[in-house]
Amino acid sequence: MLPSAQTALSDLIERLRSGDTRALARAISLAENDAPGAIDVLSACFPHTGHALRIGITGSPGAGKSTLVDRLARAWRGAGVSVGVIAVDPSSAFTGGAILGDRIRMQERIGDDGLYVRSMATRGALGGLARTTADVAQLIEASGKDIVLVETVGVGQDEIDIVRLADVTVVVLVPGMGDDVQTIKAGVMEIADIFVINKADREGADRVEREIRAMQSLAGDRTTRITPIVKTVATTGIGLDELLNAIEEMKQWLAQEGRIEVRRTAYWRERIEQMVQHALLKEARAHGLSREELAKHAERIAAGDEDPYRLAPRLVARVFNEREDARGVRS
Amino acid sequence: MLPSAQTALSDLIERLRSGDTRALARAISLAENDAPGAIDVLSACFPHTGHALRIGITGSPGAGKSTLVDRLARAWRGAGVSVGVIAVDPSSAFTGGAILGDRIRMQERIGDDGLYVRSMATRGALGGLARTTADVAQLIEASGKDIVLVETVGVGQDEIDIVRLADVTVVVLVPGMGDDVQTIKAGVMEIADIFVINKADREGADRVEREIRAMQSLAGDRTTRITPIVKTVATTGIGLDELLNAIEEMKQWLAQEGRIEVRRTAYWRERIEQMVQHALLKEARAHGLSREELAKHAERIAAGDEDPYRLAPRLVARVFNEREDARGVRS
Repeated sequence: MLPSAQTALSDLIERLRSGDTRALARAISLAENDAPGAIDVLSACFPHTGHALRIGITGSPGAGKSTLVDRLARAWRGAGVSVGVIAVDPSSAFTGGAILGDRIRMQERIGDDGLYVRSMATRGALGGLARTTADVAQLIEASGKDIVLVETVGVGQDEIDIVRLADVTVVVLVPGMGDDVQTIKAGVMEIADIFVINKADREGADRVEREIRAMQSLAGDRTTRITPIVKTVATTGIGLDELLNAIEEMKQWLAQEGRIEVRRTAYWRERIEQMVQHALLKEARAHGLSREELAKHAERIAAGDEDPYRLAPRLVARVFNEREDARGVRS
Repeated sequence: MLPSAQTALSDLIERLRSGDTRALARAISLAENDAPGAIDVLSACFPHTGHALRIGITGSPGAGKSTLVDRLARAWRGAGVSVGVIAVDPSSAFTGGAILGDRIRMQERIGDDGLYVRSMATRGALGGLARTTADVAQLIEASGKDIVLVETVGVGQDEIDIVRLADVTVVVLVPGMGDDVQTIKAGVMEIADIFVINKADREGADRVEREIRAMQSLAGDRTTRITPIVKTVATTGIGLDELLNAIEEMKQWLAQEGRIEVRRTAYWRERIEQMVQHALLKEARAHGLSREELAKHAERIAAGDEDPYRLAPRLVARVFNEREDARGVRS
């Protein structure tokens, strides 16, 4: 890296650390685009992470998650706690996330340095959104926020991957969804630390609660902790205090017996593997495995003229051999 | 590979090609587990693929996709067309896919060699389900099926990745979903070749149709083809003939002006990159990057003692260097 670029990066990191919102936004853009310098920024920020509480909020579309997130953010801000919100919409790569627009307006209206809101919809290749969300969470944390809240739009496997970075995962359900919701619920049973039944003034809230308990007893009680179920009406603020308490209790529970370390280690175990895989592909690209070449192969495969199952290992072997050849020339 | 193992594989491939369902199931298990021999089987099957029509069916949970798939499969079987169905549920890794159970019973009831049904719910690490589904589709096609139908449970990014292998993608909507469905719909607008509004006897079917058309005009008309919208009531069979016609018309449209080649090339361009990435990680594992070592690093990262952003490139560099060292010793 050029010395001037290095200086610019140091400056960016310093400003980010001091809570400068523009510097944070700039660093996030670098990370999102996997741009040169992104790793330097993330690496420089890493020592300043680990202190914030990371909260993931997921649940069926239409469950009222964004209203709930707004309420939580306002409550924490009122108590002097700084908050970063990442609103992730994996499904809206095409439209660019229309629903997230009002969140940005909300931030402008508040004009509060202790609240940073970022919406993310673009998805790079190869599961990039979970990776980028994790990097953005790191940057927001390094900028000094006490709480980083990651909200997803739906509740598919993608969303589960995204909220995996959370210390505390809140799953929001709502009464009166169709039967297939049972399946969705089942898929997220194991990641929920707190259940919220929002729109609890609707008919069926008690039934949802019974169903959650029934599924939990089916799955077997594998922790020493009973997952709390909090009923809320986010639009009016009913149940909000109870939810704040449940989050605080979970935080205290995590602080005991090294639980948060166990949880974060489990997270990093998966994440470091993904980072290695990402780095491997970058290395392969740097050694001549260009997109253009792959596109030519793709054409031959589609025509049935080339066997992809033999091609992939052959290309990988070539990447390694080219490195060896390059070293041979140098030595 | 040992000669006897080679013979066993040749035998398996031969039986699979002759339409033997047990051999097909065995080959699918190999592919699902990325077991030794899996690549040999897939490679041997590859020349026998490319002739079947691949149909993807996705849509909101509760939209009636499975009933629709059953109807389509029966209609094709009645016309002597052989069908393979892959029912994929990315959300049910935890429960094991309860909803898919009745599909298997369906197949048993029919007892028809021209119909093969496979449910998939287990998800390996790193986007494994899309990869495995694609491999399973190849195997089913090589076993001689005329149509391979891939059905997903929901409509997240995961499902979009999974149905990307399709020549024809059918998106199933249903009247009377919440407002957030708009977002989900928007995310799949670009992959839909045919829209189905199922449960069209419900109130609001016309409104869904208008919304689709409105979103299409917003997105701009980028093809020479108007995406058909078919209204169905899958439970009674209403609209089924129209849907069969729409699929047939799409098939004919694809056969013109090299469109199917363009589409399949685009698919393989992404897929070969994923295959290379998968092969790279395998290579790294073969060169000492064990899960155990990564787990130790994860512990240090979680404690803040190691910087993951520096670690990943360093591990990758080591993998390459170890290969070089190994070669140095040999030469």
